[in-house]
Amino acid sequence: MEINYVIDTLFALFAMTLIIFMVPGFAMLEAGLVRTKNVTSVLTVNVMIYAVASLAFLLIGYELAFGSWEHQDGMSKWAFFMFQMAFVGKVVNIMSGGVSERSRILPLAIFTIAVGALIYPIIVNLTWGANFLAGTALDISALSDLAGSTVIHSTGGWALLAAILIMGPRRGRYKDNIVRVIPASNIPLVTLGALLLWIGWFGFNGGSVGAISSKENADTVALTIMNTNTAGLAGAISGWLLTYFRYKKFDITVILNGALGGLVAVTAGPDQYDIHTPILIGAIGGALVVLFVPIFDKFRMDDPVGALSVHLINGIWGTLAVGIFVADVSIWTQLKGILVVGMIVFPLSWITIYIINKIFVLRANDEEQLEGIDATECGIESYPEFKRSI
Amino acid sequence: MEINYVIDTLFALFAMTLIIFMVPGFAMLEAGLVRTKNVTSVLTVNVMIYAVASLAFLLIGYELAFGSWEHQDGMSKWAFFMFQMAFVGKVVNIMSGGVSERSRILPLAIFTIAVGALIYPIIVNLTWGANFLAGTALDISALSDLAGSTVIHSTGGWALLAAILIMGPRRGRYKDNIVRVIPASNIPLVTLGALLLWIGWFGFNGGSVGAISSKENADTVALTIMNTNTAGLAGAISGWLLTYFRYKKFDITVILNGALGGLVAVTAGPDQYDIHTPILIGAIGGALVVLFVPIFDKFRMDDPVGALSVHLINGIWGTLAVGIFVADVSIWTQLKGILVVGMIVFPLSWITIYIINKIFVLRANDEEQLEGIDATECGIESYPEFKRSI
Amino acid sequence: MEINYVIDTLFALFAMTLIIFMVPGFAMLEAGLVRTKNVTSVLTVNVMIYAVASLAFLLIGYELAFGSWEHQDGMSKWAFFMFQMAFVGKVVNIMSGGVSERSRILPLAIFTIAVGALIYPIIVNLTWGANFLAGTALDISALSDLAGSTVIHSTGGWALLAAILIMGPRRGRYKDNIVRVIPASNIPLVTLGALLLWIGWFGFNGGSVGAISSKENADTVALTIMNTNTAGLAGAISGWLLTYFRYKKFDITVILNGALGGLVAVTAGPDQYDIHTPILIGAIGGALVVLFVPIFDKFRMDDPVGALSVHLINGIWGTLAVGIFVADVSIWTQLKGILVVGMIVFPLSWITIYIINKIFVLRANDEEQLEGIDATECGIESYPEFKRSI
Repeated sequence: MEINYVIDTLFALFAMTLIIFMVPGFAMLEAGLVRTKNVTSVLTVNVMIYAVASLAFLLIGYELAFGSWEHQDGMSKWAFFMFQMAFVGKVVNIMSGGVSERSRILPLAIFTIAVGALIYPIIVNLTWGANFLAGTALDISALSDLAGSTVIHSTGGWALLAAILIMGPRRGRYKDNIVRVIPASNIPLVTLGALLLWIGWFGFNGGSVGAISSKENADTVALTIMNTNTAGLAGAISGWLLTYFRYKKFDITVILNGALGGLVAVTAGPDQYDIHTPILIGAIGGALVVLFVPIFDKFRMDDPVGALSVHLINGIWGTLAVGIFVADVSIWTQLKGILVVGMIVFPLSWITIYIINKIFVLRANDEEQLEGIDATECGIESYPEFKRSI
Repeated sequence: MEINYVIDTLFALFAMTLIIFMVPGFAMLEAGLVRTKNVTSVLTVNVMIYAVASLAFLLIGYELAFGSWEHQDGMSKWAFFMFQMAFVGKVVNIMSGGVSERSRILPLAIFTIAVGALIYPIIVNLTWGANFLAGTALDISALSDLAGSTVIHSTGGWALLAAILIMGPRRGRYKDNIVRVIPASNIPLVTLGALLLWIGWFGFNGGSVGAISSKENADTVALTIMNTNTAGLAGAISGWLLTYFRYKKFDITVILNGALGGLVAVTAGPDQYDIHTPILIGAIGGALVVLFVPIFDKFRMDDPVGALSVHLINGIWGTLAVGIFVADVSIWTQLKGILVVGMIVFPLSWITIYIINKIFVLRANDEEQLEGIDATECGIESYPEFKRSI
Repeated sequence: MEINYVIDTLFALFAMTLIIFMVPGFAMLEAGLVRTKNVTSVLTVNVMIYAVASLAFLLIGYELAFGSWEHQDGMSKWAFFMFQMAFVGKVVNIMSGGVSERSRILPLAIFTIAVGALIYPIIVNLTWGANFLAGTALDISALSDLAGSTVIHSTGGWALLAAILIMGPRRGRYKDNIVRVIPASNIPLVTLGALLLWIGWFGFNGGSVGAISSKENADTVALTIMNTNTAGLAGAISGWLLTYFRYKKFDITVILNGALGGLVAVTAGPDQYDIHTPILIGAIGGALVVLFVPIFDKFRMDDPVGALSVHLINGIWGTLAVGIFVADVSIWTQLKGILVVGMIVFPLSWITIYIINKIFVLRANDEEQLEGIDATECGIESYPEFKRSI
């Protein structure tokens, strides 16, 4: 009916707008987590990613993912596009955040084109889209992943893993078997960014239900948003308590990353859980962040924002969780989805980044890192008037 | 009808989302108002409050307030829960903001559980909820308070009053009968936070109409949002002019607190006023902030963010205003509501905070305050790279 | 039908709320672009503008623009008012931003009243409103300007042009034929502000369609928002590439101003373009920013935030673009609209500002500028605890 078309279009536009708040969300989070000398470059990268990934998706990726502009009939096709487009940049954000403070901008922009035009659309094609592997052994269209624990977060995580392996750690991060702690430069920005991401998640997961215009859909959307939020609450509390009982300090970056971990973890199935399950899923999500951040450091996989733990580990956990907690979802289907996506995204990203790094030099060299990417790439200080002690 | 259910669910989710913007809103406002050495702890407290209060409300408080999860039938029960849940943390925010720079975090978290699980739900039960005192002398269900001038703002204000009386002022704030001015450390954050709160208020008050799916409701929602905004405008201008004519300077913290005072003041009845009355209500709200901030200081009630004036005084004023400006609302009913809520919240908060302070020590001692709560509680500087002059 | 009334009211309230995010958007953008010594005053001006312009519009301007409160019948008249009111302050923001760091606050507030009560309402009257020149030679109601490339952006731009001509450049900006570069003080705020403006534009342009409650309208709204966003993407990329190929650096202020230029340029006709045209319009918009910023500097027209290029030049370009790219829109009608608006706004603003400057002294003198407007007008430092190197 026309009125359903209207309401679902309005709903998609509302959800999309919330997701767009993740653009300043990621930008502020990462700008707050890195050192002052790299803040401008991180911000530049974030804006560049939104612009380049979205345009690449509009021009190439969208049709690759969904087959045509006309496949959608329950709402305006333009609203559906905008909702899907809002996702794309996030995949690159996950990767770019994790290689902050040591990456040059132009090569990142080229990788962004690859993700927006090709890598991400392939994954969407296989899961939510046209499915060019339908009927083959690699068909993963049965994967239960409402809003992208695997499709978005693991995908970004695998790309980041590839990037970290190729690029190595930041200069001076691991010395004589000691992990040097590099403190976040601006805690208010970290907090603001994480909270904007949290709000964006309501649109991300709620909007992924795809329609709100029946009583049943309205209930599902509302439950999805409630469960999404609950997992964030539990992840924050879990990250908080685990750190507190160990160090007797409140570490807001762990609390916020715990919340984000919980949000990633619930993303595969918030429409299918009762209202208490997300507490458990989110709490485990937060705990995984606390657990895995030092593990990655042990393997000298340098990830300034904790993106591997938040997005890759919790993307996997969240996808498995649907298989564990929802009766008619097979954990093997979930596992297959995780593996197939990893087997596609990781090598594809690895090759792409490897080539980009060879030709355009993705990694900033030690001198550049010492001086700061702001100076070498942008020529613009983030806070030029403040005297610095570091 | 199904379509009304759908639209009212979408509307509640929209309104709820706006209220969640008050989480970064309060966080940025308070982080900007306190000194740099306490910024991280203030942010940690804000995130902790949202997580703990919301989860306590989900697990315990909500059923205490409304009797059951099934009382709601015009929209998805999950959307109604989310809308109500979005309110809870605000009550604690009001209290925690007013005791900033001198409170320890874990005891605050325990008080947050008490508010989310018990104190706030009791007040909601009596006013908007199941009303366990129905028919008794303390029945205040006739109170006209659309979105919580009393239920939210005075409640938070009474809790803060109790906390201030128990905890005393910040170290060095009142010396030799002189009130030491402690300047806000980051004016952009103050501004951003206050403006996010302002936007959140549209959802707070608009959503409290409860439905938008009839022509009459749509008009009421729109009028409510318009009147809410108008009172904010008037409060800002009133705070501005009163300060300007006295000091010949523009004090943005007073302008913003004036706006917030106006917003609190209009909150009890924005659906019932014509479009000009909120100008008067808001202007008086702003004036009350200008008037009461020095009064509280005179009584050495130290409130770094002006929360007593903004929330308690204007919560009372706003509730009385409905009795004054709306023909069929009795000012005595309003007064009774104010008093009963105060008589419940103040002693309950006082006892709770007193016990918490005895057992867990809520107040940071002078050495801790001198060093800054960031160092003693969090071990994380808010802006570690900037040289400080203070 | 009632349900359309409801949905269009909800839609207008949603769109309006997005526009209100432009209040913190402009505030953060400008606070980030100016020097630390002027940040508080810029923020004060932004809040003051929202309060004063909106209230002046409510009390006087709205009826002047639209003839009566009752002209609207497809949605709640209060929602329609709020949507229109959300626009007003933007016109003054454009002007005030461009004369940052050298203007005193009270005279600006008086000009704000003039814009909110008179100047802007006259332009709305002629274009979207009651049209008091209907049938005369100056009738420009045929102008195709969906959301205000001319009505908002050029209007603000002409007012700014008048202000810059009267007030002259900042002290020390042009010396011995050298343009002194004054770096932005806080890049994260610049980024946050620009991104909030971007999001606000979805509401600005999408909401200007005026209704969403039919299938056709839903498609138009979604297309409008999509095209708006696309032009922003293209403007950012265009600003980025043009600067990069010239200077081999990434200049985030140009990237963001390029995006804003693209957004202004698409604003006249996003409902009428196919999905690829906005790429061209936005890319030209970004290029115009890159091109015109040095041109204005050549003529010693000092505009710290680039508002003339972003709003005036792109407002003109965007209005012409509808005539160029849409078959049944005459470029001469567009040109006439641009000229009539300029011929009204520029002299009216010039006279108003000239008188205000004579009586109340709008321009801060050199000593005041040297000390900083924060000290002379507000007595409040923006970041009092940070040691400054400049």
